[in-house]
Amino acid sequence: MDKLIDLRSDTVTVPTEKMRKAMYKAEVGDDVYRDDPTMLRLERLAAQTMGKEDALFIPSGTMGNQLAIMTHTQRGEEIITEAEAHIFYYEVGALGFLAGVQAKQLKGHMGALNPDEVEAAIRMEDLHFPRTALICEENTHNRAGGTVVPLDTMEAVYRVAHEHDIPVHLDGARIFNAATALGVEAKDVAQWADSVMFCVSKGLCAPVGSLLTGSKAFIDKARKIRKMLGGGMRQSGVLAAAAIVAITDMPQRLYEDHENARILAQGLAEIKGINVDLDTVQTNMINFDITDTGLNGNQLAEIIRPYGIKIAGSPNGKMRFVTHYYVTRDDVYRVLAVMKELIEEPVFAMSRNA
Amino acid sequence: MDKLIDLRSDTVTVPTEKMRKAMYKAEVGDDVYRDDPTMLRLERLAAQTMGKEDALFIPSGTMGNQLAIMTHTQRGEEIITEAEAHIFYYEVGALGFLAGVQAKQLKGHMGALNPDEVEAAIRMEDLHFPRTALICEENTHNRAGGTVVPLDTMEAVYRVAHEHDIPVHLDGARIFNAATALGVEAKDVAQWADSVMFCVSKGLCAPVGSLLTGSKAFIDKARKIRKMLGGGMRQSGVLAAAAIVAITDMPQRLYEDHENARILAQGLAEIKGINVDLDTVQTNMINFDITDTGLNGNQLAEIIRPYGIKIAGSPNGKMRFVTHYYVTRDDVYRVLAVMKELIEEPVFAMSRNA
Amino acid sequence: MDKLIDLRSDTVTVPTEKMRKAMYKAEVGDDVYRDDPTMLRLERLAAQTMGKEDALFIPSGTMGNQLAIMTHTQRGEEIITEAEAHIFYYEVGALGFLAGVQAKQLKGHMGALNPDEVEAAIRMEDLHFPRTALICEENTHNRAGGTVVPLDTMEAVYRVAHEHDIPVHLDGARIFNAATALGVEAKDVAQWADSVMFCVSKGLCAPVGSLLTGSKAFIDKARKIRKMLGGGMRQSGVLAAAAIVAITDMPQRLYEDHENARILAQGLAEIKGINVDLDTVQTNMINFDITDTGLNGNQLAEIIRPYGIKIAGSPNGKMRFVTHYYVTRDDVYRVLAVMKELIEEPVFAMSRNA
Amino acid sequence: MDKLIDLRSDTVTVPTEKMRKAMYKAEVGDDVYRDDPTMLRLERLAAQTMGKEDALFIPSGTMGNQLAIMTHTQRGEEIITEAEAHIFYYEVGALGFLAGVQAKQLKGHMGALNPDEVEAAIRMEDLHFPRTALICEENTHNRAGGTVVPLDTMEAVYRVAHEHDIPVHLDGARIFNAATALGVEAKDVAQWADSVMFCVSKGLCAPVGSLLTGSKAFIDKARKIRKMLGGGMRQSGVLAAAAIVAITDMPQRLYEDHENARILAQGLAEIKGINVDLDTVQTNMINFDITDTGLNGNQLAEIIRPYGIKIAGSPNGKMRFVTHYYVTRDDVYRVLAVMKELIEEPVFAMSRNA
Repeated sequence: MDKLIDLRSDTVTVPTEKMRKAMYKAEVGDDVYRDDPTMLRLERLAAQTMGKEDALFIPSGTMGNQLAIMTHTQRGEEIITEAEAHIFYYEVGALGFLAGVQAKQLKGHMGALNPDEVEAAIRMEDLHFPRTALICEENTHNRAGGTVVPLDTMEAVYRVAHEHDIPVHLDGARIFNAATALGVEAKDVAQWADSVMFCVSKGLCAPVGSLLTGSKAFIDKARKIRKMLGGGMRQSGVLAAAAIVAITDMPQRLYEDHENARILAQGLAEIKGINVDLDTVQTNMINFDITDTGLNGNQLAEIIRPYGIKIAGSPNGKMRFVTHYYVTRDDVYRVLAVMKELIEEPVFAMSRNA
Repeated sequence: MDKLIDLRSDTVTVPTEKMRKAMYKAEVGDDVYRDDPTMLRLERLAAQTMGKEDALFIPSGTMGNQLAIMTHTQRGEEIITEAEAHIFYYEVGALGFLAGVQAKQLKGHMGALNPDEVEAAIRMEDLHFPRTALICEENTHNRAGGTVVPLDTMEAVYRVAHEHDIPVHLDGARIFNAATALGVEAKDVAQWADSVMFCVSKGLCAPVGSLLTGSKAFIDKARKIRKMLGGGMRQSGVLAAAAIVAITDMPQRLYEDHENARILAQGLAEIKGINVDLDTVQTNMINFDITDTGLNGNQLAEIIRPYGIKIAGSPNGKMRFVTHYYVTRDDVYRVLAVMKELIEEPVFAMSRNA
Repeated sequence: MDKLIDLRSDTVTVPTEKMRKAMYKAEVGDDVYRDDPTMLRLERLAAQTMGKEDALFIPSGTMGNQLAIMTHTQRGEEIITEAEAHIFYYEVGALGFLAGVQAKQLKGHMGALNPDEVEAAIRMEDLHFPRTALICEENTHNRAGGTVVPLDTMEAVYRVAHEHDIPVHLDGARIFNAATALGVEAKDVAQWADSVMFCVSKGLCAPVGSLLTGSKAFIDKARKIRKMLGGGMRQSGVLAAAAIVAITDMPQRLYEDHENARILAQGLAEIKGINVDLDTVQTNMINFDITDTGLNGNQLAEIIRPYGIKIAGSPNGKMRFVTHYYVTRDDVYRVLAVMKELIEEPVFAMSRNA
Repeated sequence: MDKLIDLRSDTVTVPTEKMRKAMYKAEVGDDVYRDDPTMLRLERLAAQTMGKEDALFIPSGTMGNQLAIMTHTQRGEEIITEAEAHIFYYEVGALGFLAGVQAKQLKGHMGALNPDEVEAAIRMEDLHFPRTALICEENTHNRAGGTVVPLDTMEAVYRVAHEHDIPVHLDGARIFNAATALGVEAKDVAQWADSVMFCVSKGLCAPVGSLLTGSKAFIDKARKIRKMLGGGMRQSGVLAAAAIVAITDMPQRLYEDHENARILAQGLAEIKGINVDLDTVQTNMINFDITDTGLNGNQLAEIIRPYGIKIAGSPNGKMRFVTHYYVTRDDVYRVLAVMKELIEEPVFAMSRNA
């Protein structure tokens, strides 16, 4: 069993050979002095791809999102997020620690905010109230299962926000997955936000990094805060070289990951004891529940590992599989076969593996 | 129309003659050096009243709540609050600005958290997660309409929290109203929290201040943070003297405010176009809706003012009346009569007033 | 020995009978709603006295200073302070915790900043640099011994700051002592600062509080941050009533405290083993050193206590005495006599006291 | 004039061919899951090199220093730094913004803190005082001119700190330059600090990154804060591969940069109008002053640029040249010749260049 099938996340993707070569040959300089030609090229490409004026490279999506909050707001203000937005849920409490803002949480539908609820949540002027300073969206929405926020919802939220002079930030860590599912270009999604963060290190396979995009004034301000956060890097052109390949070559193949996810989800749904809400399987993620199998996620992760399959554990029955460049159609079939065996014929499976 | 009937809040209560005399005669010293005998007496009384080891005087409930958060948590941690808790809703974003925490919001039932949902919201250890560091409750719950959180709910939340080694803070700004409605002593409510803040400046009529109570170690730590916040005062015994009267004399009369609120609520419910959810009228507040009268709150506030009645406006139909020491039974009847006239016979009312 | 002579600080002053009466009779309302007529009167008086547009009452000088920093700056900016300014030295690290700024410290001469050094410390624009956002002065300067910053120095610093569009904040906790020593009005000192904080609770004998003064826009912004800090109080007119007496009646008698301090300082200088830098004795404080007596401050505080004299201890020989309304000329002579006896004839003194 | 001689900083160094090859071939994984074998190897090597238990890769020295402060302290505490320490001077105010601490600044001698002054600056327990929580040193000291703090001074400061149970952090961005100048190993310098940050991206020529080293418990805590700051990267093994070459191959050649700096400094000192304090030229930096030439730094930078020499400008006469791997002995002679010509025979130089 030579190859490892890693379904934990698309963050596990390693750089492609073409990326490695680009890194090897990258022309570089000191990016703190803005002397790195490859980085300048990446930032222009990223801005263009999102239809924004300017862009800034950051070492992670978390830094990009928090940088956006810090750039759009003053501490003590309020932002509106979906109840399980990555920005609130997975970023180690940074919005309180770093940005010093509080987040009003609205329960979305498959990750999509309701524009009317957004409007109702915007604060009026009052001595007791923080100012509502930012509305955050996430597309695709991670916790909801990689679901896609429809463009008309994004537009409606954007219009509500702008009526109240409030900017919108889009956590577009997987914006190319959203665009692929919607059959549009990334900038068609990005147009309904004032700032957009997207990652080159997830489904696009670059080793490190994300881009924050927005107006020139916004990016100028963000650049200084990035320095303060310690996100200013020197010959970062080595990373930019891989990122350029990622943006140029990879988005157009994401439909394969979505197809594989669909097949994987349908196959899982047929295994006894597994429950999948197929409606949420819209891109490269499958959220499902194995409670009825009698196993929890940590147990499944342990017993499937000897089959060369790596999955994220969980203390309960809630599971997530993610497809990506290094998960082929054959891998999907293999995973389904192993899962079926382990869950429907567990004793036989165990003994065979031993 | 000599007397003004002020229904905006119980915060408008002025000190009683007995309080003024106590302030006049108060023996005082420099409380930063802990030399103020009246303040020391108040802090002992407050601790005893709540069944806690120690207490600390603060100039406002907001400072008390935020001080509790800052004392219980480290910045970057997460706290759990009811979705419309005062701590989140009305404290100017202080929990992000000052404490640097983020608040997970749970929708309560009439202000009461669901203990199972609290348990589900507690974070497990993970590199991506902030630590859940505090659970905040509010009793009575302001935004829910002065509703009372039942003792068994408080106990259940407390037990969940303590199983996870997480402290509980109670925003007991109106804990004496809660105790009155529950027919218990304040300390019976306070027992289900590690720290309790309560106000002497609301229904209890003291001019200024609140008390934070808890363990000795907690209060020692809070005292230093209070100094940092600028809450350390000098001859604050003048305020303590009034607070002692407030705690000693006033809780036992709060039932009158509750009765008046009940009568007022029932009367309002009978006026055409006014909707009151009588289930929420449990203490001295009445939340109601005048949308069906065709007026909004700001309009009503304006047209009722010439009748010697002061109410809190609102840009829509949602209204709140609050009863207190200076609102008598007769005042209640007068308010009802004026409201009926203004809303059911508006033209006649207007002309008569002119 | 009935009367206690308390030389620890002028913060120990209790309210005068006139203040107590004013508090007793004060007309009050809810100041959060700006309904307290006495507070409104105080704030107008305070603004006028400092020659500023508006004023805001706060429970302590620490809150006033930190509120000024928070109102003038954004977190992450830099302020310039004297190396031992109260704002840096005695405010529990609030400038980092609350305001999130860093303080560039300049060593002053008797508390006075050197305008040229201020100019040199102002940052130019650079990706690596925080913006210099505020210059803080202190007059009189506490740690320097209650020394007075000359008006021409204040003017020069103000001009340097304004050439660089940087505001100046004055910690004028004891600005009336400065004005008395300079023979001018408080507003002559206050004119060289954009915001001025002064205390009514120190030499002016009010029980609690300070005032922050500045432009209307500044005070409007500060009012909201005060609410966030928990400094918004309800019927605070009871405190304002005393503060009005303090501002009206007390500044004109501060020269007595200065004369008493001078006499006390000169007397101490004649006691063997005591070293006083008489040049620094400019107002109501005397910094001196008892190292050569073989005693440290804690020991002296202990042995002088039975004589009815209370002084601030110290782990070494550095001492501070402060004169105020409740320290008479006779008290000064008595202190000198006791000190002389204790230090020059210690054995005799001890036995007599026993 | 093909080759550019870049004297602005050693941060401009690009990766060597060996580093590029190592990056190309690097075995990588998702470092957030701690799956990157090259990164694990680098962190072990870094820890070992500094004689510490554990290490953590960060994208910049600024993040490493601020992460150390955030890990050692609680907001609101006080740290002690040299008056012009990088941590205070060049990190965009991060210590206030991120860590929420205040920095007590002590003027050092050639960048070295005086242990007695450190001891005097440590706060005793007092209600008014923040706790002294960390002492920061910098070796070599950037603003002092790349000067070396002697080991016995570091030891003395360390002992003072530990007597008061206060940890010491070393900003060792250029610790290998310090070790080279002192003729010891890096870990001989690192031993006098509890945490040490060093950079692989400066004189060591790696493209990106720094390492924070310390005890296992310290690094575990720092790892989580790094995630919160957005410093957690995915396949960061590509950067680690270059960093391993940097640590393995480059320190032993730094003496060449020091020799070149010495020759450059001595040559500059002989040019009329240039003042160099040769005592401060201890490693690879030369601070000097050109005020007497009648030029300021920005003018010199402009007129020397056509000669293929890039230097950091300055609005006044204060200049800094830095030697590194890409500045050869011949380059040094060329720079000296050009400087001499431009400054001593300016008219001739200009015309020749035109």
